[in-house]
Amino acid sequence: MPSTDRTYSLTTTTPLGFSDAVARVREELAADGFGVLCEIDVQATLKAKLGVDREPYLILGACNPSLAHQALEAEPELGVLLPCNVVVYVQGDVTHIAAVDAERMMSIVGNPQLTPVASVIRGRLAAVIERASGA
Amino acid sequence: MPSTDRTYSLTTTTPLGFSDAVARVREELAADGFGVLCEIDVQATLKAKLGVDREPYLILGACNPSLAHQALEAEPELGVLLPCNVVVYVQGDVTHIAAVDAERMMSIVGNPQLTPVASVIRGRLAAVIERASGA
Repeated sequence: MPSTDRTYSLTTTTPLGFSDAVARVREELAADGFGVLCEIDVQATLKAKLGVDREPYLILGACNPSLAHQALEAEPELGVLLPCNVVVYVQGDVTHIAAVDAERMMSIVGNPQLTPVASVIRGRLAAVIERASGA
Repeated sequence: MPSTDRTYSLTTTTPLGFSDAVARVREELAADGFGVLCEIDVQATLKAKLGVDREPYLILGACNPSLAHQALEAEPELGVLLPCNVVVYVQGDVTHIAAVDAERMMSIVGNPQLTPVASVIRGRLAAVIERASGA
């Protein structure tokens, strides 16, 4: 199971290389009805803007339209915290896959109507990264 | 000044229409060194995926490369919470502009090295939305 030692993310590692891990994450997100609405290639962006070299790091902004709609109806301002990110990055030859802990993130909103949606998203993203990691 | 009544966002309203407000937000982000790394047209996405009609709602994922680099060095997993969003939306004929409260969002990480960066981002995004609102 993905580790939840960190307070704000669900994390796992995989024997896969970076590109294969990204492909598996995309497959598992799609299989569970999450669209990838935005992507940020952190490595390329920091290289282009700052000339900094760092290891591969990709942010995928994942969104399940039905759950997002439900959440925004309950809390119109919630867009400042959406979408829910899954990241793949390499650090010291290890490929990491992590997802935001939606329950923890949405807890700062203080709207109890979000609790069940956040719980569902958390569980589904935990399963996505577990399957993608090949564990 | 933007309201901070909400616990997780800095919010303001503007007499501008939706499109003009979006343009002003883009200008003010750029003027302060924030790139827009991703955009989500929530209205179009929910219409396309669910057939739902709702008022205009745009999420702009803003990133200051230098501050992002600094934050990721201190906390590699932070990508699950990045970029910092500014949203523009219409609700009941009123145009709202809101930014994530970076201090509040990053507080869930529990890494004191992030505190000064989060504080800077919070202050700069508050100023961006205040200027963009025309207040």
